[in-house]
Amino acid sequence: MPEFSALVDELVAANHILFDQGVVDGFGHVSVRHPTASDRFLLARSIAPALVTAADIMEFDLDGNPLDAGGRAVYLERFIHSEIYRVRPDTGAVVHSHSPAVVPFSVAKDVPLRAVGHLGGILGEGCPVFEIRTAAGPETDLLIRSSALGAALAKSLGRGSVVLMRGHGCTVVGSTVRHAVFNAVYTEKSAALQSEAMRLGAVTYLTREEAEAAAACNAGQIDRSWELWKMEAARRRLQPQT
Amino acid sequence: MPEFSALVDELVAANHILFDQGVVDGFGHVSVRHPTASDRFLLARSIAPALVTAADIMEFDLDGNPLDAGGRAVYLERFIHSEIYRVRPDTGAVVHSHSPAVVPFSVAKDVPLRAVGHLGGILGEGCPVFEIRTAAGPETDLLIRSSALGAALAKSLGRGSVVLMRGHGCTVVGSTVRHAVFNAVYTEKSAALQSEAMRLGAVTYLTREEAEAAAACNAGQIDRSWELWKMEAARRRLQPQT
Amino acid sequence: MPEFSALVDELVAANHILFDQGVVDGFGHVSVRHPTASDRFLLARSIAPALVTAADIMEFDLDGNPLDAGGRAVYLERFIHSEIYRVRPDTGAVVHSHSPAVVPFSVAKDVPLRAVGHLGGILGEGCPVFEIRTAAGPETDLLIRSSALGAALAKSLGRGSVVLMRGHGCTVVGSTVRHAVFNAVYTEKSAALQSEAMRLGAVTYLTREEAEAAAACNAGQIDRSWELWKMEAARRRLQPQT
Amino acid sequence: MPEFSALVDELVAANHILFDQGVVDGFGHVSVRHPTASDRFLLARSIAPALVTAADIMEFDLDGNPLDAGGRAVYLERFIHSEIYRVRPDTGAVVHSHSPAVVPFSVAKDVPLRAVGHLGGILGEGCPVFEIRTAAGPETDLLIRSSALGAALAKSLGRGSVVLMRGHGCTVVGSTVRHAVFNAVYTEKSAALQSEAMRLGAVTYLTREEAEAAAACNAGQIDRSWELWKMEAARRRLQPQT
Repeated sequence: MPEFSALVDELVAANHILFDQGVVDGFGHVSVRHPTASDRFLLARSIAPALVTAADIMEFDLDGNPLDAGGRAVYLERFIHSEIYRVRPDTGAVVHSHSPAVVPFSVAKDVPLRAVGHLGGILGEGCPVFEIRTAAGPETDLLIRSSALGAALAKSLGRGSVVLMRGHGCTVVGSTVRHAVFNAVYTEKSAALQSEAMRLGAVTYLTREEAEAAAACNAGQIDRSWELWKMEAARRRLQPQT
Repeated sequence: MPEFSALVDELVAANHILFDQGVVDGFGHVSVRHPTASDRFLLARSIAPALVTAADIMEFDLDGNPLDAGGRAVYLERFIHSEIYRVRPDTGAVVHSHSPAVVPFSVAKDVPLRAVGHLGGILGEGCPVFEIRTAAGPETDLLIRSSALGAALAKSLGRGSVVLMRGHGCTVVGSTVRHAVFNAVYTEKSAALQSEAMRLGAVTYLTREEAEAAAACNAGQIDRSWELWKMEAARRRLQPQT
Repeated sequence: MPEFSALVDELVAANHILFDQGVVDGFGHVSVRHPTASDRFLLARSIAPALVTAADIMEFDLDGNPLDAGGRAVYLERFIHSEIYRVRPDTGAVVHSHSPAVVPFSVAKDVPLRAVGHLGGILGEGCPVFEIRTAAGPETDLLIRSSALGAALAKSLGRGSVVLMRGHGCTVVGSTVRHAVFNAVYTEKSAALQSEAMRLGAVTYLTREEAEAAAACNAGQIDRSWELWKMEAARRRLQPQT
Repeated sequence: MPEFSALVDELVAANHILFDQGVVDGFGHVSVRHPTASDRFLLARSIAPALVTAADIMEFDLDGNPLDAGGRAVYLERFIHSEIYRVRPDTGAVVHSHSPAVVPFSVAKDVPLRAVGHLGGILGEGCPVFEIRTAAGPETDLLIRSSALGAALAKSLGRGSVVLMRGHGCTVVGSTVRHAVFNAVYTEKSAALQSEAMRLGAVTYLTREEAEAAAACNAGQIDRSWELWKMEAARRRLQPQT
């Protein structure tokens, strides 16, 4: 299965890139839908993304159960992935993170995260914010620990590409691993730009039409960034000490 | 004493991690309670944390006296550690720093540092701020130079995990070295997130129940960050020039 | 043509410097007017600036047509360059970027980017902002995809050195590659300083006379920064993995 | 003259440290008073601080004239140094920079840079701002190009350690090279902290007595930072390409 092996390598690279670009730290995860079984997905065992290798990639079903755990610990929040794959057949990859410039927008009561520049086109006229209190009350630890919570999050995501999670982070999807990574990196960058712009005063945002056109254009430019980011991540790759 | 030796290595790694993660610069220090003598603790000689080696680790009693100085200079503020160990038997390690995102909260008259995201759960509904003027008047150099000042700081900390020190920095505790380091790093990250969030307008903070649940969850995830941070610090380790 | 070869090397270095200094990421481009044919210019094929080598440099005419494409993909926005060279004979090099500290000023309705310190002298009393809606309506993807749009942008630039592009980025010119790179780097740095200064309250800006005198002085100091930046970029140079 | 040679090495290290710590970029300079001739000082030829070697160090008199130019270009603003040495016998070293967090305070009409934390003790209750328009009118390029302007700046500095220069940067002094470097680095760090703190609302600043006590304490801790910074700068040292 050379194609499968290449996809695993792509997923490993995505883990390293998301760390290198500052989207994830010790926490966060990225998955890809199984190339031949649409009701399965690939995700690393519970480990910091920067340290993921091909041997850490596991297979899960849409209930979030690992098919081949072999004693390995799994991410508590794998249900983010499973439930989005269940209801979004157009989604090929999912990134969950505590993207540092995005988290403030998740707790800002009056300000949506939206497209302020063309590279943030997927943010459109504003991203939804998932409030876990609505689904599970005021005493959770904010994590998506069950299929039910995952389903609630997926519902909040709707047909969009990005959903913020109040007091927690965000989840970003794409048609492929590269697309989801591109979207996650530019969601982070766009949040920082919007935050800066708002401090200068009144802001001109992209229209819905501009945002859609820009998102479509960006989707055709992904490889250019991917090649760059992959080389950057490889250069700064963490290696276990011997 | 292989266990003792392993603990010293852990403390050395903690020093390097706190520097690498931007919690300390040339100043700041981290200690651990002695594994078999609860009235002693281990702390480096007076040296920048990034440069600490096992040979720099010294033993102190709860009056802040070194047991084996051997002519080595000691930190002026070792009383931060001694007095907290005296009154907090649940505390196994202490970090003191001038954590850059935290210092502004130490001087902000009207804004407490509190949990804005799940990884800052230990901050709860707001951290106490130690005002040295109350304990020692308006003409100090702000340092904790005596057992009396250390005791006043420990009282301000109370049962919490973090106490801010006005115009100075903060002190963060944990049950183990890894726990204290985790708490110190995420106190810094959380302060930056709160500061950003507040600029966007009204903010939804974690409830007390959410903060407690999140803190409990985080305490079970520490090793994942520790392994990452240890590798990052090792890669960027400063080596004396020959 | 040793002179031509040296100019290509200069352009390659400019690509690497702009990446290393944080002016461009995977996107953005820099060109130089052909040394002997003033109606041509040199620009890389469509590739991330950090990865450009001499073999990637192509020649274009002032209609944005490549003279020697050889199957290589070209930048969608090459018309930024062609139309500026057409109307600005004093311009020897052009940088287009999504300079992160500048983009917020491109969408701020009420705040011009202007000289707040002597190294931002070229910004004078305020830079023009190109609003693509005026030229092409409210449904574009914001890119300069045609000679007509390039001409509109060049008109907005006027006789200045910097034009902001709403929701997109900016374009910066200079008499030489080094001059354009210097201007682009200090436009980015100056935007960050202005943004910070404005948050402190009322600001004293440079007078028109101060800005012009400072810009003239800076133009004589470019090599000092260039030598530094070239060494920094070379040290962190990305190398394809073998 | 081994002592002289050691002082030159110290000055070279200071150049590298100031670059590595982000106080200077391609511009800025640091000098030291001659160890045996109090009416002379040592300063590099006109070159980026990161690239200074011992061979670049020149000797100047208090009129800013080089004693041994040998065809080498000199800094336009050497008069900053000469005039401060002339009127401040307690000053052993001078740093001039465009310290990025400090420049905004140089143009803020209503906010002085002052001590907000103990490591910024030298800033006291507020630093003076030199307005070149007062000395030389509204059409300068803001640079200190003459002994007369240097004298005006030195007068503005007064008995303090730091003087801001409107729209330009700052000049920081100390009794030794290490002291001036320490003061320059913590002036930059302190400006960033104050800027952040002010955004949170009302701020508690250090009293004059606290600032003085803290500055005195800090002066005894300089070597700890110097050893760290020297190792950091050496690790990231730029080397000419061969």
